[in-house]
Amino acid sequence: MKKVFFVALMAAMCATTWAAPAKVSSPGNVISVDLDVDAQGIPTYQVFHKGKAVVKPSKMGFDLAKAPLPGSFDNILDKSKGAALDLRTGFEIKDVKHSSFNETWKPVWGEESEIVNNYNEMAVTLVQPKIQRTVVVKFRVYDDGVGFRYEFPQQPTLNYFVIKEERTQFAMTGDHIAWWIAGDYDTQEYEYTRCRLSEISKRFDDALCGNASQEQFSKTGVQTALQLKTDDGLYINLHEAALVDYSCMSLNLDEKNLVFESWLTPDAQGMKGYMQTPCNTPWRTIMVTESANDVLASRLILNLNEPCKLEDTSWIKPVKYMGVWWEMITGKGSWNYSDELPSVKLDLNDFSKLKPNGKHSANNDNVKRYLDFASKHGFQQLLIEGWNIGWEDWAGNSKDYVFDFVTPYPDFDIDMLNKYAHDRGMRLMMHHETSSSVRNYERHMEKAYQLMNKYGYNSVKSGYVGDILPRGEHHYGQWMNNHYLYAITEAAKHHIMVNAHEAVRPTGLCRTYPNLIGNESARGTEYQAFGGTKPGHTAILPFTRLQGGPMDYTPGIFEMDLTYAGNKSKVLSTIGGQLALYVTFYSPLQMAADLPENYEKHLDAFQFIKDVAVDWDKSVYLESEPMEYITIARKAKGTNDWFMGGIAGMKPHDSKVKLGFLDPGVKYEAIIYADAKDADYKTNPQAYTITKRTVTAKDELKLHAVAGGGWAISLKPIAK
Amino acid sequence: MKKVFFVALMAAMCATTWAAPAKVSSPGNVISVDLDVDAQGIPTYQVFHKGKAVVKPSKMGFDLAKAPLPGSFDNILDKSKGAALDLRTGFEIKDVKHSSFNETWKPVWGEESEIVNNYNEMAVTLVQPKIQRTVVVKFRVYDDGVGFRYEFPQQPTLNYFVIKEERTQFAMTGDHIAWWIAGDYDTQEYEYTRCRLSEISKRFDDALCGNASQEQFSKTGVQTALQLKTDDGLYINLHEAALVDYSCMSLNLDEKNLVFESWLTPDAQGMKGYMQTPCNTPWRTIMVTESANDVLASRLILNLNEPCKLEDTSWIKPVKYMGVWWEMITGKGSWNYSDELPSVKLDLNDFSKLKPNGKHSANNDNVKRYLDFASKHGFQQLLIEGWNIGWEDWAGNSKDYVFDFVTPYPDFDIDMLNKYAHDRGMRLMMHHETSSSVRNYERHMEKAYQLMNKYGYNSVKSGYVGDILPRGEHHYGQWMNNHYLYAITEAAKHHIMVNAHEAVRPTGLCRTYPNLIGNESARGTEYQAFGGTKPGHTAILPFTRLQGGPMDYTPGIFEMDLTYAGNKSKVLSTIGGQLALYVTFYSPLQMAADLPENYEKHLDAFQFIKDVAVDWDKSVYLESEPMEYITIARKAKGTNDWFMGGIAGMKPHDSKVKLGFLDPGVKYEAIIYADAKDADYKTNPQAYTITKRTVTAKDELKLHAVAGGGWAISLKPIAK
Repeated sequence: MKKVFFVALMAAMCATTWAAPAKVSSPGNVISVDLDVDAQGIPTYQVFHKGKAVVKPSKMGFDLAKAPLPGSFDNILDKSKGAALDLRTGFEIKDVKHSSFNETWKPVWGEESEIVNNYNEMAVTLVQPKIQRTVVVKFRVYDDGVGFRYEFPQQPTLNYFVIKEERTQFAMTGDHIAWWIAGDYDTQEYEYTRCRLSEISKRFDDALCGNASQEQFSKTGVQTALQLKTDDGLYINLHEAALVDYSCMSLNLDEKNLVFESWLTPDAQGMKGYMQTPCNTPWRTIMVTESANDVLASRLILNLNEPCKLEDTSWIKPVKYMGVWWEMITGKGSWNYSDELPSVKLDLNDFSKLKPNGKHSANNDNVKRYLDFASKHGFQQLLIEGWNIGWEDWAGNSKDYVFDFVTPYPDFDIDMLNKYAHDRGMRLMMHHETSSSVRNYERHMEKAYQLMNKYGYNSVKSGYVGDILPRGEHHYGQWMNNHYLYAITEAAKHHIMVNAHEAVRPTGLCRTYPNLIGNESARGTEYQAFGGTKPGHTAILPFTRLQGGPMDYTPGIFEMDLTYAGNKSKVLSTIGGQLALYVTFYSPLQMAADLPENYEKHLDAFQFIKDVAVDWDKSVYLESEPMEYITIARKAKGTNDWFMGGIAGMKPHDSKVKLGFLDPGVKYEAIIYADAKDADYKTNPQAYTITKRTVTAKDELKLHAVAGGGWAISLKPIAK
Repeated sequence: MKKVFFVALMAAMCATTWAAPAKVSSPGNVISVDLDVDAQGIPTYQVFHKGKAVVKPSKMGFDLAKAPLPGSFDNILDKSKGAALDLRTGFEIKDVKHSSFNETWKPVWGEESEIVNNYNEMAVTLVQPKIQRTVVVKFRVYDDGVGFRYEFPQQPTLNYFVIKEERTQFAMTGDHIAWWIAGDYDTQEYEYTRCRLSEISKRFDDALCGNASQEQFSKTGVQTALQLKTDDGLYINLHEAALVDYSCMSLNLDEKNLVFESWLTPDAQGMKGYMQTPCNTPWRTIMVTESANDVLASRLILNLNEPCKLEDTSWIKPVKYMGVWWEMITGKGSWNYSDELPSVKLDLNDFSKLKPNGKHSANNDNVKRYLDFASKHGFQQLLIEGWNIGWEDWAGNSKDYVFDFVTPYPDFDIDMLNKYAHDRGMRLMMHHETSSSVRNYERHMEKAYQLMNKYGYNSVKSGYVGDILPRGEHHYGQWMNNHYLYAITEAAKHHIMVNAHEAVRPTGLCRTYPNLIGNESARGTEYQAFGGTKPGHTAILPFTRLQGGPMDYTPGIFEMDLTYAGNKSKVLSTIGGQLALYVTFYSPLQMAADLPENYEKHLDAFQFIKDVAVDWDKSVYLESEPMEYITIARKAKGTNDWFMGGIAGMKPHDSKVKLGFLDPGVKYEAIIYADAKDADYKTNPQAYTITKRTVTAKDELKLHAVAGGGWAISLKPIAK
C-alpha cells in the first residue's frame, strides 16, 4: 500500500506542473514545434511550417542496455520489468523554459564572412517519476528549421548508462521524394537514388556498390543528411549537428507509416553508446524550406555547433593544392615502391635493398616536376601520397602495424623536397593513410605531427580505408568518432590542419575546430577512375554531404579519357562542369586534381582554377534543384572579385542569371568558361569556350550547361 | 586429368623425402620426442621420459578463419571444402633438420647469476602439397622438458591468415593429479584446486570466485602453467614461453580421453589470432621432471625466450619497496579524494574545490610518514596509489577517459614528495591504474612516462582492473598482449621498470625485456583482505604462476587481524610464513606490504625483510611438493650471504635441512625466524621465535612450520 501511494503521489505532483503541450515558434514565426507526452508517457513532438505539419507526432526516447540504479531503488522498482532500461515511457513534463538567441558570428573560413544565428529555444524537462529520472529535450527553432537534442543532467538515478538504441522518430506527412544513400556503418561512398519514400526498399540493392569497408543494416536504412521534397514543394532535410562522443545516426524507415526512426552505429558488442552524465546527444536537425536555394543557404548545422574552441586560429589558412595522387588513382603510378614483397614488416624489411617497381609516383623527380608546375601556377601546397614505407600490403589485411608515418621511401628525400617546395613559396601536404589501424595511428601520431612541424608541413590528409582496428568497431561508431576528434585536437596543438578521408560524415564540427578543413565521407572524384559516377551526383552533394562541412571532392579533371593510364574508366563530366565545381562545392581546401601534363594542354581553362578563391565574404544561391542543377555566385574574401559556377545533372540546363548581386555602378570583366555547344560528358567532354565581356549589376547572363557539364565565370572589377 | 596428375605428382615428390617419424632426444637422453603424420596427414607428436611415454600421440595444427590464396590456386582447390582454412590435415614431412645448442647466459637479475641453455633442436618442415603450404614445427628438447612452436615462413600461399583455433593436443598417459585454476580470458586470480584430471568438471564451479573481469569458456578449461603429477611420481608442467603478438593459450580437457587441447583467447569478434608470415607461435612447453624441486629449478621457460633486446640494462635494479597501498586494500584509507561526486569528468571537475573525504591515503603527511619509516629501514622505493585524480568512479563503469596519469590530487604535492624521498635516499614508485581503458592509457603514456622522468621515478606499477576498452577485447587476447609489450618497450625508452598487474600471465619475456620486473597475474596478498586465501596457495604458485616470471605478490603482512581497518577478513598466514615468502617467491621486486605501525610492533621480525636480498647468485631447491611445502636457500648476489625460507600448506611441515650448500670451512651467523610452537594461522598468527646460532656447511637444521606458516633464515659469514 505504502509503495503504491508513494508512486501515485509523485505522479500527481508532476502532473500538476504542466498540462498543455509545450510550444515554441521560430523568430519569424515560420517554424513551430509542439512537445507533449502520449498516453504511455512517451515524449512526442511535432513540427509545423507556417502552421502546417511537416513532421507528424513523433516519439522520442531510448532503450538502454545498462543503467545502474542506486540500491535504494530496489524498493520501488520491479527489476524484472526493466524500468531502469526504459528511457522512453512513463515520462511527464515537469518544466518548460523558453529563451531567445540572436548573434552574428564570424567563421574562420566559410561561404560568408558573417553568419546570423537566430533562434528561439525551448528546454522541456521530462521526468520519469517512478525512478526519479530526468531528461531535458532542448529545441532550437530557426526560420529554416529545428534542432533538438536530449540532455542528461547528472543525477543519482542516471549516471553511467549504455544505449541499446535511440528511438527518435521523424514521422513524415506524405510519400515524399527522397534523395538517399544506403544506411551504412562504415561508408557514405555511394551514388544517390531519387525515389519516393515508399520505394526505398525496392531500390535498395541497386543503390549499393562495393567499398573496402561497408555494412548496411536494413533495406529501409538511409543516411543523413537526407534530402526530401514534399508534393507541396517543401524541402525537408534531416541530419544531425555536433556529433561528439556519440555514434553516428542513420535513419530506418517504417515504409508503411512513413516514419523514420534513428538507428545508431553499434560498437563491436552491438551497443550504441556509452554515456556519462552530464551529457547530451548531438542535435537532430529538421530543415524545412520553401526553396532548394534556401537549403544551400542554410547555416542550421553550423549554428547548432559550439563556437570555436581554438584560441589562436591565425595559422588556419584555406588552401588550393595539387597532388601526386590522381596518377595513382588512375593506375598510371603506384603508391608502393616495390613489388617484391608478398607482405611487409616495417621493422624487418630494408626498403633500400628492395628492387623499385619503376611506377612509384612519390619519387624525387616526379615530385619536383609537380612542384615546378604547381608553384609556377600559384598553388600553395602539393599533396604527396605514397611517400612513406608500407604501401606494399597496406589494404585489406587487417594489419596492425601497417605504417609508421615518419619513414620515407628511399626515393623520397623529405628534407630536400620540403626545401624545394619552400624555395618556390609552397609547402608539401602530408598524407597519413591509417588503413583504419587506428591504435597504430594514435601510437605514432605525436611523432608524425612532430615530423610535420620539423619540415614545415601544416596540413594533413588522413585516410581510414578498410575495416577498423580495433576489429569490430565501425567508422561511424562512438569509438571512432572519439578518435577523429582526438586527431583534430592533437593536430591543433601542432598548428596542423586536417582533411580526414573515410571518416564519419561531418556535422558542422568545423565551426568549433576550424582546423578541420575538409573531409571526404562521400563518393568523390576518385570513383570517376573506378568506373565513373553519373552526372547529378555533384548536384545533390551540396544538399546532403556538404551540409555538415566542406568536402575534399578533388575536382578539376581535364582529361576524361584515362587510357593514358591504362584505365578503361571514363570521367563522366566536362571541363566546364569540372570548373564549376570550384564554386558550387564550397571548400576551404580545393584541389586541382589532374596531372600537370593534362593541364598543360588546356592552360586557358586552367586559368579559372588558378584564379578562383577558396574563401568567401558572401555567397548567393541563384538557382538549384537537387541532382539537377545548381548555380551559385560567391564574392572572394577581402576582395571585390566574384566567381560563379553552374552545373547540370543528367539533363542539360539553361540559366538566365541576373547579376544584381554585383556592386552597383561597377564594371566587371567577366571571363566565361562554358561547355561548347557540342560538348558531351561521354563523347566530347573537353569542348569548352572561353569568352570575355564586360558586365554590370544590371546585366543578365544566359548560360548553357550540357548534361553532366557546367560553366564557371570569374568577375573582376575593371580598374577605373 | 591434368589437375589430378599435378596433385598426385606433388604428393609423390613429398612422400619420398621423409618416411619414418622424425625423432630428437635431449642432450642427456632423458627426454625424447617423435613427430609423424597420421593417416589424415595430421602432424602428431609424442614425448618420452627415459623411454616411457609422458605425452601420448597428440595432434597439431590450426583451424583458420581466413587465409587468402593467390588466384592461381582456384584451379587446384575445391573452395567449398575449405582447403585453405585447414592447416591441420593433409600434411607430409618434407624435411627434418637437427642441431644442438649449449650456452651459459647471465640474466640481468634472477634466481642465479648464470643460466645454462642446453638443448637439441629438431625443425620439421611440413607441407600441404595440395596448396603448396609449408609449416615448420620446431622442437627444443632439454633434459627437463620440451618446447615446440609452429613457424610460418613467408610464402605466396600463406601470407596473412586468421586463426579460428589452434588445435595443439597434449594427450596425457593417465588420470594424473592436477593443480589447476579455471581457464579464463581475463584473470588468473583464483585459488588452486588439486584433483584428478577426471574430476575437473565436477570441481569447476567450486573453483571460481568473483573478479572485476572474468570469463570462463568451459568446465574442463584450465590455465597454464598447469602442474601435473603422474602416479609414477613424475611431475609434468604444461605452459608456454615467449607469448608475443599472439593470444594466450588455455587448455581444454577431453575428460574421457584425458587429452588437453589448446584454447586461445578470442578477440571481440571471436577470432583468435591475426598472423602475418614470417611469424611463429609462442613455444608450447612440457616440463617433465622426477622431482618437484626440479620444477622449481627449471629454466625452460626463460631459455625459450629471446636474449635481452635492451642494449643498456644498467638502469634496471631490483628493488625492495613499501607502499601506501595495504591501508586502502583493507579499507582503512581510500584511493579517492572526495565522496562528493556521483561521477567524475576529468576535464570538468575542479578537484581543488571538492570536499575531501578525510580518508584519502595518498596525502602529503601520510606519504611523508611512510617515507620516514621506509627510509629509516633502508627501503629503496615507496609506491603510492591513489595519487592522481579520477579514483572517484574509476572502476566498473566502462569509462574511457578515466585517468590522465599526470594530475595529482590537491593533497599530493608531487614535487615536494619526490624531493622528500630523494633527500632520504629513496624514490617514489609510480602507479598507473588504467581501469583497462587501454586506448586512454596509450594516449597519455608518453606524457606519463615523461612526468616520471621529470620527477625521478624509475618504476611503475600498472593495473588493468575491469573489462577491457576497446570493449569486447580480453586481458589475455592478442590485442592486449600487444599492448602490454608496447607499454614495456616504451617504458624502456624512458629507463622505466614495469610491474603490470592484471596483465596476461608471464611467459619468460623478462629475459628479453628485463625492465619487466614484475607482474601480478595471480591471486595475490590482497585477497587476504577480501575474505582470505587458504594456506597452500603460496606453495603452488612457484610451480605455476612463477614459471613465467616474477610475481609482485606483496608479502610481509604482520597484522593478520584487520579489524583496525574495519575489515572482517583475516590474513590466513603467520608472521613466520610471511617472512619465508621473501625467499620462496623469487622476485626482483619485493614489497613489505604492511603498514609502518604494524611493523613497529615487530621490528625484530621486520629485520629479516630489511636484510633479505632481492637478487641472487645461486638458488638451491631443498625440498618441495606442490601446495604442501617449499624450502629454498639462495645466495645473495655479489655477497657471501645466504637466505633460506620454508613454507607449509594446509598441514604443518618439519624440515631437516643440510647446509652443505654453504661455503666449506666458513662460519655463518644464522638468525632463524620461525613460527612459535603455538603459532596458528587462524588463531595465533603472530607467534614467532627468533634464534641465533653459528652454523657451517656440515650442520643440519631442524625446522618446523605450522600449517599456513613458515620460517626464514639469514646466514652471514662471521668475520674472522
